Amino acid sequence: MMEQINTAILGASGYTGAELLRLLAGHPGFRVSALTADRKAGQTMDAVFPHLAGLDLPTLVTIDQVDFDRIDAVFCCLPHGTTQSVIAGLPDRVKVCDLSADFRLADIESYAEWYGHPHQAPELQKTAVYGLTELAREAVRAARLVANPGCYPTCSQLPLIPLLKAGLIEADDIVIDALSGVSGAGRAAKEANLYTEVAEGVHPYGLGGHRHLPEIEQGLSAAAGRAVRVSFTPHLMPMNRGMLSTIHVRPAAGVGPAELRAALAEAYRDEAFVRVLGEGVVPATRHVRGSNLCLIGVFPDRAPGRATLVSAIDNLVKGASGQALQNMNLMFGQPEGLGLAQAPLFP
Amino acid sequence: MMEQINTAILGASGYTGAELLRLLAGHPGFRVSALTADRKAGQTMDAVFPHLAGLDLPTLVTIDQVDFDRIDAVFCCLPHGTTQSVIAGLPDRVKVCDLSADFRLADIESYAEWYGHPHQAPELQKTAVYGLTELAREAVRAARLVANPGCYPTCSQLPLIPLLKAGLIEADDIVIDALSGVSGAGRAAKEANLYTEVAEGVHPYGLGGHRHLPEIEQGLSAAAGRAVRVSFTPHLMPMNRGMLSTIHVRPAAGVGPAELRAALAEAYRDEAFVRVLGEGVVPATRHVRGSNLCLIGVFPDRAPGRATLVSAIDNLVKGASGQALQNMNLMFGQPEGLGLAQAPLFP
Amino acid sequence: MMEQINTAILGASGYTGAELLRLLAGHPGFRVSALTADRKAGQTMDAVFPHLAGLDLPTLVTIDQVDFDRIDAVFCCLPHGTTQSVIAGLPDRVKVCDLSADFRLADIESYAEWYGHPHQAPELQKTAVYGLTELAREAVRAARLVANPGCYPTCSQLPLIPLLKAGLIEADDIVIDALSGVSGAGRAAKEANLYTEVAEGVHPYGLGGHRHLPEIEQGLSAAAGRAVRVSFTPHLMPMNRGMLSTIHVRPAAGVGPAELRAALAEAYRDEAFVRVLGEGVVPATRHVRGSNLCLIGVFPDRAPGRATLVSAIDNLVKGASGQALQNMNLMFGQPEGLGLAQAPLFP
Amino acid sequence: MMEQINTAILGASGYTGAELLRLLAGHPGFRVSALTADRKAGQTMDAVFPHLAGLDLPTLVTIDQVDFDRIDAVFCCLPHGTTQSVIAGLPDRVKVCDLSADFRLADIESYAEWYGHPHQAPELQKTAVYGLTELAREAVRAARLVANPGCYPTCSQLPLIPLLKAGLIEADDIVIDALSGVSGAGRAAKEANLYTEVAEGVHPYGLGGHRHLPEIEQGLSAAAGRAVRVSFTPHLMPMNRGMLSTIHVRPAAGVGPAELRAALAEAYRDEAFVRVLGEGVVPATRHVRGSNLCLIGVFPDRAPGRATLVSAIDNLVKGASGQALQNMNLMFGQPEGLGLAQAPLFP
Repeated sequence: MMEQINTAILGASGYTGAELLRLLAGHPGFRVSALTADRKAGQTMDAVFPHLAGLDLPTLVTIDQVDFDRIDAVFCCLPHGTTQSVIAGLPDRVKVCDLSADFRLADIESYAEWYGHPHQAPELQKTAVYGLTELAREAVRAARLVANPGCYPTCSQLPLIPLLKAGLIEADDIVIDALSGVSGAGRAAKEANLYTEVAEGVHPYGLGGHRHLPEIEQGLSAAAGRAVRVSFTPHLMPMNRGMLSTIHVRPAAGVGPAELRAALAEAYRDEAFVRVLGEGVVPATRHVRGSNLCLIGVFPDRAPGRATLVSAIDNLVKGASGQALQNMNLMFGQPEGLGLAQAPLFP
Repeated sequence: MMEQINTAILGASGYTGAELLRLLAGHPGFRVSALTADRKAGQTMDAVFPHLAGLDLPTLVTIDQVDFDRIDAVFCCLPHGTTQSVIAGLPDRVKVCDLSADFRLADIESYAEWYGHPHQAPELQKTAVYGLTELAREAVRAARLVANPGCYPTCSQLPLIPLLKAGLIEADDIVIDALSGVSGAGRAAKEANLYTEVAEGVHPYGLGGHRHLPEIEQGLSAAAGRAVRVSFTPHLMPMNRGMLSTIHVRPAAGVGPAELRAALAEAYRDEAFVRVLGEGVVPATRHVRGSNLCLIGVFPDRAPGRATLVSAIDNLVKGASGQALQNMNLMFGQPEGLGLAQAPLFP
Repeated sequence: MMEQINTAILGASGYTGAELLRLLAGHPGFRVSALTADRKAGQTMDAVFPHLAGLDLPTLVTIDQVDFDRIDAVFCCLPHGTTQSVIAGLPDRVKVCDLSADFRLADIESYAEWYGHPHQAPELQKTAVYGLTELAREAVRAARLVANPGCYPTCSQLPLIPLLKAGLIEADDIVIDALSGVSGAGRAAKEANLYTEVAEGVHPYGLGGHRHLPEIEQGLSAAAGRAVRVSFTPHLMPMNRGMLSTIHVRPAAGVGPAELRAALAEAYRDEAFVRVLGEGVVPATRHVRGSNLCLIGVFPDRAPGRATLVSAIDNLVKGASGQALQNMNLMFGQPEGLGLAQAPLFP
Repeated sequence: MMEQINTAILGASGYTGAELLRLLAGHPGFRVSALTADRKAGQTMDAVFPHLAGLDLPTLVTIDQVDFDRIDAVFCCLPHGTTQSVIAGLPDRVKVCDLSADFRLADIESYAEWYGHPHQAPELQKTAVYGLTELAREAVRAARLVANPGCYPTCSQLPLIPLLKAGLIEADDIVIDALSGVSGAGRAAKEANLYTEVAEGVHPYGLGGHRHLPEIEQGLSAAAGRAVRVSFTPHLMPMNRGMLSTIHVRPAAGVGPAELRAALAEAYRDEAFVRVLGEGVVPATRHVRGSNLCLIGVFPDRAPGRATLVSAIDNLVKGASGQALQNMNLMFGQPEGLGLAQAPLFP
C-alpha cells in the first residue's frame, strides 16, 4: 500500500477540477484532502458534480479554510489572473501544479502585454517549470511549481517542437488552425456557451490574438533557437471534449512527409501518451476522448513545398487535468502514467 | 499476480465488443486471447477501432479460426438470432456471457413469437441464467451460460422489480417511456442511424411492440407473481450513449414516494453500481456516462394515485458490456466490480 | 400592396423574438416598427442576432422609448411575471399577443398558486383569449389580447382536446411524457443550459410540478367538462428545437386506436398546420423543424386498455412565435397562414 | 400569375433533392413535375422525406419513366460519375443545372485524373457554364447546361477570386482549412457517417487530395491568370449543415486587411447573398443555416505578412441547392433571388 499524498484542488467546481477528481478516483497515490470553490463553498461535490457522487469527496470550502500544513500537493484550477497571489501564499514545501495561464509565460513583459496587468509574482515565475511533460520531464521531476500547458499549446507544440529542434521545417511559415470542444471555455454561465448558441454550428474566435498564442510562440521559439511568429486560429466546435490542430508547415529542402513522420516517431518512440500514426492514418478527437493520449499524423500536401501535421487530444485530459496529473506523478516520484491508463471512450 | 483467464469476444467489431475491450484494458483477470468478426476477419483492431490502438489486441479472425480448447471465457456479441447455434457449438467447459437476446426469454414460445422463428437451442436455453446481476447474483455465480439483459430491460427492471416483489406498486398499471442513445442501434450502416437522420431531433419507435418488451414483462411478471403487461415506448435520442426510463406507477394504498424510495434504497443498500438518489435529486444520463452505474430517483406526481420512477444507465455499460463483465467476474469467482470502477465521464 | 400594420416586439432579444422576426421577414402585412430589450437597448439587431443581419430592423430600445400611438400590434415576449403591468399600460387600441404565461390561466387563484404572487392585472385577464388557434379561432379573431399557449400545452392539448370532447378517452388516466429542445429555456445565461451541461445527455425536470401543468389541465378540464388532473413530465433534450409528447391514454369502452385516429383526422381535417398521420407513421421533431406544423400519430399499446398518442411541434414555431403570428393574422383579418408557409428544414 | 416551368429533379431521394423541394415549395415559377430515384422509384416523397409531406409532390419514378418532352428544367442531383450520360440523353431544349461534379472541370484530362475514368460527354462539357453565380452571372443567364459548384469550392472561391483578380494577395501561398457539416456526405448508409461515428468529434479527411481541390484551383488559376496550387484540408464536423472556410493568405506589398475587406465589399456591393462583414465581425455557420447567404470576414494575423479570410455558407443551400435555384432562376429569366429569401434558422 502506497503512502498517500495529501492533495488539495483549488477551484474544484470547474471542469478541470472535476476531471482531476475523475482521474484521481482510480489513483493509489494521491488522497483528495481538500477541495475549494469560493462561490460554491459549503456545497457537497455531489451537488456540484453529480457524476462524482459516490467518490466520498470532501465538501467544498474556501481557500482560507484549507490547512495547508496538512497538504503536500496542490492542483490549482483557478481562473487566469487570480492564481499568482494564491500560489505565492502557499508554504514552500507544498508542490504545485497550476492549470491556469498565470505562470506559463517566462517573460513577464509578455504576460503583462497579453493579460493587461503586471505579473504579481515575478520571483515565483522564475522558478516555474513549463510542464509539457514529454519535452520537459527532468525539469518537471525537480520542480516545486509546474505551469501546466494550455490545451492549444499542448496540441500544437507536441508535433512542432521536435521538428523545429531538428531543423526539419521552416520556422517562419507555420499556420495552425485549431478546433476545440466547448469544455475548454469552462463552466461559467455565458450566453456564448449556451447549448443553443453552440450546437449545430462552428466559428473561429480570437482571430489575430488568442492568449494561447504567446505560449505557443514561446515554445516554438525556444525550439527553433530564435523568435518565431505563427499564424494561429482557434475555432469552437459543437462537442464537449476534444481538440484537433491542423498545422501547415514547410519542410526543409529535401525533407518530405516521410522524414517528418520518422523524426516524430523517433522523438516519441518510448512515450506512452504520444502516438505517431502510420502513413494515411488520420487523428480524430473521438479516438482520444477521456484519455491522456496525443495522436499525431503527418500528411503530404499537393501544394508545392508544404506538408500537414494533424494532432488530436482531449482538451480536458492531455490538454489540462491529465497532463497535470502526469506532471504531479513525476514531481512526487511516482510512475508517470499512474491514474492515466484509461482507454478512450468511444462512441 | 492473478492467473489470467483466456477470453474470446465473438463479434468484436461492434460497439459492445469495443466497449468490453475498453473495460478489459484495465482488468487484471481476463486476457483477451481471441477476437472474431466474420466480415472484418483479417483486420487489426487498430483499423476497426482506432481508439483501441495501443492495447496490443489480437487480429480479428472468424469464429472457425478460434481454438476454443484454449479459451475459458466467451463474451458473445453476435447479432440476435445468430447466436444460438454458435454457443451450442462451444465446449461445455467454456463459460459464456451472451449479450444478444437469444437466451433471455425463458419461454421459447415467446421467443418464437417475437423473433419469428423457433428457438434453435431449447435445451441450452433451460440452462441459461438471466443475468440482471444485482437480482440474480447467486445464480450468475453458478452459471455456465448467462443471458446478459438488454439495455431497456436493465434500466426498467432495476427500479421496478423490488417494488413489485414488495407489493408496493400495482402490477397492472405501469407505463414506461424510455430514451436511448444511438449506440444501442449498433454499428451497422443504416440510413436511419446516419448523423443527419438523428441529430437535432427525437422520435419514438417500436410503438406497441419493441422486442425488449417481453423481456421486461418476463422479469416483472416473476416479481409480481403473475402475468404483467406493461406499456413500453422507446425513443431515439441524439446522443451516443445513455438511457433513461421514466416510469409511471400506482403505489399501493397508503404508499407514497417516500416509501418507494426507502424500499429501493434498502434493496440496493449494499450495491456498488445501483444508487438510489435522495429526495429531489434527478437522474441524468450524463452522470453515468462510461460507468456501470444505475441511478434511480423516485418522485411524487400531482396526478392522484401516481408516482414516478426515473432510472438512468449508460446503455453500453450497465446496459450491455459492463454488466456482462460484472457477470463474468462472478462466474469466475472474481470481485464483482473488477474493471468497472471508472468514474463517469462528464462533460 | 397590402397596407402594413405597425408592429412592436417587446423583449426582442430572446429566441421567441428572433423567431418572430424570422417569420415576419417574409410577411407582407406586418411592418416591424419597434423592437425593445431593456438590457440590450441601444444595440442593433445585427449585433444581438447576426443571423438577422440584412433585414434592416430597428435598433433595440427600451419599452419607455416606444411611441405606442404609432403601433397597432404588439408581440410581447417578455419574461413570465413581468408582462402584466406592461400590457396593462398599453393603449386599448393596440392588439396584443402575449407569448408569456401571464395571461394563460383564467383562474387567477391558480396563477397565484403557481407563480407565487397575486395576478397584477385581473381585469385584463378576464378579456384574454387563450390562443390555441385551431380550437379557438373565432375567439382569437375577435380578441384584443391573446394569451399565446406554452409549447408543452400546445403539443399536449392539440391531440387530447378533441378526444376528450368526444368522450373517446378517459379523463382520469392521462400520462404525458414530453421532450423539449433547449431553446425553450430561453437565451439567459444559466449554467444548466450550457452546451457542456446539455449535450450528449437527457434528463427529466420539473418533476411533479412544471408550470405548464395547470395550463394543460385547464384546457383538458374544459374539454372533459370537469376537473382533470394529468401526469406530466417534461424532459430536456440535446437539440436546439423541437418538442415531442408521448401521451398514454385509456380509450373508452369499445374504442380503439383506429377510432381515435379517425376522430382526430376529422377534427383537423381542414387545418393547414395540424396533420394527423396515417397508421404506423411516427411523428418526429425533425420533420417539423422551422415550420408551424403539429404532427399527430395514434398507436396501439400492447398493455390492455391503452393507446398512445404522439405529437411533435417546433417549440419555437407552433409552440411559440409561429402560433403567435397565426393568432395575430386572425386578429387583423389576414389569412391565418400568412408568413407561415415555410417547409420544414431537414436535415 | 406567372406561367410555371415544368421541372424535374433527377435523384430526388438525396439531401440536395429534398433541399431543392423545400426551396421550390415557396417558388411561384417552377412546377415540380417529375421526381426520380432509381432505387426508391415507386415510393411517395412522404415516405422518403416525411418533412415534405403536404407539398403534394409527384411519386418517385425512374429516369426512364420521365417524359422529358413535357419538362423544361432539370435539376440533376445524381451521384458523381453517373450524370454525364444521363444529361447527354436529354432533349436539347431542356435546360439543366447539374449539382454533381461531372461538368465542373473544364479540362477533361483533369477530370480523368481525379475521377479515374475518361469523361463520357466531352462535347457537352465544352458547353457547360460553371455556375458560381455572382462571378458568372451573364454566362449563366445564357447557358443551357450549368455545372453547379461544389460546396467547398463555393465557400473558398467567393472570398478569394476577387482578391486574386485584383492582385491583392499572392497566388502562391494560400492555405484553406474547411469545416463541413455531415449532410455534405449525402444520405447513403455508410458506417463512417453514422451518428455514433460523427457526433462529439472532429477530424480532417481527404488529406492531400480531396476531389474539390482541382475545382478550387481551376477557379483561382483563372482569377490569377496562371496556374495556382493551394493547400486545402477539409474537416468533418458534428453538425447537419454548414460550411466554414478559414483561409490564410499573404496580402501583396502594402496591402492590409482593411484593403482586402474593402475590395471584397466593393466586389459584392450589390449582391443579395454575399455579405462582407464589418471589422471584427466573425462569420459563423449558424448565422446562415437554411439560407442562401455567404458571409465573409477579413482579419489581421499576428504572423507577419499574413491575413485571414473566413467564409461561411449552408452547404446544402449556397453550397448546393440554393445556388442551383439561383442559377436556374437566371437561366429562365426570373428574378435571381426568387424562392431564396428565407431568413436563416437560428437557433
